[in-house]
Parts: sequence; C-alpha cells; structure tokens
Amino acid sequence: MPQTPDTNRRVVLANRPEGLPDNETLRLETAPVPDPGPGEMLLRTIYLSLDPYMRGRMSDAKSYAEPVPIGGVMTGQVVAQVVASNLEEFAPGDHVLAGSGWQDYALSDGTQVLNLGPSPEHPSWALGILGMPGYTAHAGLLRIGEPKAGETVVVAAASGPVGATVGQIARIKGCRVVGIAGGAEKCAHVVDTLGFDACIDHRADDFEAQLKAACPDGIDVYFENVGGRVLYAVLPLLNPFARVPVCGMVAWYNETGLPDGPDHGPQIMGTILRQKVKMEGFIIFDSFPKSAQMEFVSDMTGWLKEGRVKYQEQVIEGLEAAPGALNDLLEGRNFGKMVVKVG
Amino acid sequence: MPQTPDTNRRVVLANRPEGLPDNETLRLETAPVPDPGPGEMLLRTIYLSLDPYMRGRMSDAKSYAEPVPIGGVMTGQVVAQVVASNLEEFAPGDHVLAGSGWQDYALSDGTQVLNLGPSPEHPSWALGILGMPGYTAHAGLLRIGEPKAGETVVVAAASGPVGATVGQIARIKGCRVVGIAGGAEKCAHVVDTLGFDACIDHRADDFEAQLKAACPDGIDVYFENVGGRVLYAVLPLLNPFARVPVCGMVAWYNETGLPDGPDHGPQIMGTILRQKVKMEGFIIFDSFPKSAQMEFVSDMTGWLKEGRVKYQEQVIEGLEAAPGALNDLLEGRNFGKMVVKVG
Repeated sequence: MPQTPDTNRRVVLANRPEGLPDNETLRLETAPVPDPGPGEMLLRTIYLSLDPYMRGRMSDAKSYAEPVPIGGVMTGQVVAQVVASNLEEFAPGDHVLAGSGWQDYALSDGTQVLNLGPSPEHPSWALGILGMPGYTAHAGLLRIGEPKAGETVVVAAASGPVGATVGQIARIKGCRVVGIAGGAEKCAHVVDTLGFDACIDHRADDFEAQLKAACPDGIDVYFENVGGRVLYAVLPLLNPFARVPVCGMVAWYNETGLPDGPDHGPQIMGTILRQKVKMEGFIIFDSFPKSAQMEFVSDMTGWLKEGRVKYQEQVIEGLEAAPGALNDLLEGRNFGKMVVKVG
Repeated sequence: MPQTPDTNRRVVLANRPEGLPDNETLRLETAPVPDPGPGEMLLRTIYLSLDPYMRGRMSDAKSYAEPVPIGGVMTGQVVAQVVASNLEEFAPGDHVLAGSGWQDYALSDGTQVLNLGPSPEHPSWALGILGMPGYTAHAGLLRIGEPKAGETVVVAAASGPVGATVGQIARIKGCRVVGIAGGAEKCAHVVDTLGFDACIDHRADDFEAQLKAACPDGIDVYFENVGGRVLYAVLPLLNPFARVPVCGMVAWYNETGLPDGPDHGPQIMGTILRQKVKMEGFIIFDSFPKSAQMEFVSDMTGWLKEGRVKYQEQVIEGLEAAPGALNDLLEGRNFGKMVVKVG
C-alpha cells in the first residue's frame, strides 16, 4: 500500500509492550489528509528515521520525554516535503526536517521545523550523519568524553549511525579506536571501511578476552550506547580518570523491572570510585548549548567533504515495513542508519 | 599495655580478610624503637585516625592504592610528636601530620609530613575536620557536587566525619540537606546539633518512603559514601542534571565478588541516562589541584571559628583497641570521627 495523495496512513501505539514490541503494539490506520489552516502548512513524509529511543517512548515508565499516548501517532523525526503552505518561511516543494512521526501527512505551524531548501543533496542525511545521530556522537564524544590524542576510545554498536560516527571522530582526534559490533560482516566493515583500529564481535564466546587484548593500554573513553554484557566487560579495563558519556543502553531497553543477578551495582560504583571515572548521561537537545550544534555542523560538513567521515544508510521501503524494521534495529539486525522511505 | 619509651608496638596485617576483618586479620607485634639516621627524624604517635578506606588496603584487589603487604604495618594517618630530629624543618616537640601507620614509633625523612608546630590547639583535628575527611567533604561536594542555593542535597553516614561536614557545608551554601544515619540517636544529633533539615534512619522498614517524603522536590546532589540500599533508594529520586560525587561505599567494602541479584546495573545506568546524571569518583589527593586544599583550609578555619561548623570526635583509648574499633566503624557503630589515642 503506497503513499497516495488522498489518504493519510499513520502508525499508532495500540498497546504498551512488555519487552520487545509485537503485533499488538502498533496499528496502521488511515485518515483523511488534513487541510492546513491559517499559519499552518501541510507536510508529506519522504523519509522516517528509526532510532532506538523509540522503544522508550512506548513505555509509560519515567523517562526524559513524555510517552506516546495509547492511540497516538508514534513519534519520529522525518524529512518531509511541503505540499501547501500558509507560512512565509516555507514554500511548496521545500524539504524540511520535522518531528511529525510515523505518518504520510502532517500539519505543522513551523515550530521546530528546519527548512532544508527545495533540493538538498542528500535529504535523508538530515536524519543521520548531519542530524541527531551525528550530533549525538559529536557532542557526546567531544564534550563529555574529551578524548586526547593517543588515548583508547571504545564504542559499541560500532556499525550503527552513532557508533560509526563516534569512532571516526575519535580517529580524527588521534585516538586508538576499538569498536564492538555483532558479527564478522559488521566488524569487517568497521575496520576496513570506517578505519577503526580494531573491532570485536560481542557474540564471540571469548569476547571479554578479545576486548582486553585489543586494549593493551586500557580504556580512556567508553562511549556507552548498549549497556549489558559489553558494559560489564569494559568496566575492568577503564583507566584512572576515564570518561563514560552515557548515550543509550539498547541491550536493556526491553527490560521490565530489574533482571536477575548477580548485582553489578557494586562493580559499577566501585569502578567509578577506584578509577575516578566520570559517567555522565546526556540527551542531545537538553544537555548542550546552541554553540555545540553549530560546531557539529561545521566540523561534520567539512569532514564529509574531505572524505574523512563515511556514512552508511539502510533504506527500508514503505511505512508498513517500519514496525518490523524497528524490531530489527532493537535486536541489532540493522546495518548502518535505518531510514524508512515513506513516499 | 600503654606506650613506652623503649618498645615499638605495631599492628601488622597477618592475613587478608574475606568480608569483615576478624581475629586472624591483624596482629600486635613489638619491635625495638628505631634510631634516626642522617636526614631522618623519630616520630612518636599520639593519635591514629581510623577510616573506612583501611578495609580496602587489606585486600589485594585492584584499587587506587597499593595493598598493605602481609606482615606489613597497617597504613594510617597519625598525629605524632617529634622525639629526635636530624632535619632542619622539624624540632623535638613539634607536632606533625604523617602517614606512619598503626605503631608507636616511626622514622621519617620529612616527605609528605606536615608540621603543625609545637602546640596546636586541637592536634587530633588534623585527622578530621581540618584534615582528609574535612577536605574530602569540601572538595567533593563543592567541586563535583556543585550545590546551588535552594537545591536538595542528600548524604549518608551523616553523623560520620565526612557526611557531617558535607551536610553542614551544604547548609552554609543555602541547600535543603537531608542526612541518612543508623538509629534514632544519630539522627537526632544530625538534626539538632548539626542543623540538617531532616535525617532518616536507614534501619527503618519504610526507609525508602521516608526518604522520598523528606525530599519533596527530588534530589539534586547525592554525596555517595555508602552504596547499597541507600544508593538504590536515592536513584528514583534524582532530578534531571543531578550530580553524584562518589567518595566511598562502605556498605560494600566487605563484599567479595558480586552479591546476589537482582542486577541493579540497568537501574544505575538508566538513571544516569534518563536524568542526565553526572557521577564522578574521586580520591582526594589525586583528583583536585593544590588550590582546592588551600580553599578548604581557609573556608573551614573560618567556619569553625564562627561556630558555623560543628565537629564531633570519638576517641578510642589505646592502640590495642584499634582493630575492634575499625570493625565498629565498618559496621556503623561509631559516632563522629574515630581517632585512637595511642600515646
């Protein structure tokens, strides 16, 4: 069922999932395409971004953002095209970056919408390397991780949009960079294409030993985006005064309540104490000043132009494929930044 | 067996303990009093400081300091008097702050020894409110915790030398201060004498509910010095951008290996992420610039003189009582800063 001009397909939250989302979690609905009133414009979605944080918005547990209400359209960043506009700053045909969610059409009053112009070179990149994942990698690594040349930086989900960018920036800053990814194919990509010094397969039985061997001088910066077994393998390797920007923990997003023991609390807190570690959580649009975003855009545009940063996208065809693709992402079956081609 | 001029009693580490130290852990020995050679002085211990970190030095687990070797004198800060000196900067009769450990006499070449002069007003205070515990409280709270007027600060072991000082400094800075201590007597002291806004007994069955009720606006700074159940009760109350200086975790010092589950790792890391918390471990003599110590001495001397900071000591009589007293400290049966009057 492709996008059409007279129907608005939308994916709404039908039930809050326990653990991984299933067939009962999301529902595809149709509605009329709305008409823009005064001070509004109509947006047609071209690309929808899929990101791990979306699992969190399905739960009503305390979080940094309001959960999606039952029956509400799933939230998500999109690149859309303006169909009709009663706003001076936006003309029909303009591409925009907006938060209009999992649907074909949306009204907007222009608040928090970025105009990308009528013909951006790579429209979908605004959802990835030049958007939130790229900015997350840049600000989290540089402003909390503070990597210095010669230090060892470790990042998991190393073939994902954030991890791949963290590692490439750390390389540019002169660090030894060790990635962690799931499977030989991803690891080969991380080393051969992205230029990491090493990449360890977290599915290996001797993962902990391999990680240790790949970090002979310990770990100075661990960019935390997975949690779980990877975190517990990293802790004993952290050097004095190591920094841990905490960006995500996809390994635990489907947990309800506390998992079975043993209790790693003393290990986490003991490492922070003994090694004088700084761990700091951040949410990209809350934690940094405006200047951080300008610095990111300037750095990243230059690096992409010079070919010093490479970017890989995985394009999913059709809005109806989005729920399954999100589960693939949550279970690590993606390869690069996932975007859904909606229309 | 009191201190005598011709015998050096010393407490050595006989065996590494599992869990709490027992009768096999430490051994009282005697040895001749040594003679100072050129460039040396002889120190006679007056007060020995007892501190929770001493449990860590008994283990050979990876830590921030070398363990005490088997058969070696237990480490510890002391206030001593110079008996004989071949050093220009130290004269017989001078009081000094030194790291000469659990013994009556020690030789020193003056390295890392602070001269307190011939007649300091409160010699033992150099081990507490004007020494390492006071400095730990001051620098950890102000430089990592960064409390702002009107914020809520929580500190455990609130009647202990570090906790009591943290709370009183936070009050001076205009914060709402909630202490946690063991038992009604300690809690009364913390509120009535030290001037905290509230103090919760961590032994209460409804401790978690009481803590929540005492922090109606959440927690902005948690000065971590205990770990365990207190930490897990604090986590759900942390506000966005809360700061957690990690100074110690006495609840877990006797743990060997990981305790039974459930695993609180996801809770700790999830809180750091969602609430954008900064947790930072520090070791007082590693983590801060010289200027921090000068600022501390200047602030604290003034506050003590003005009566804005109160200080409570528990004096144990005799070196032979030190091992038992250390266990009291590790199990929370102390009241104020513990010092041993050795001679």
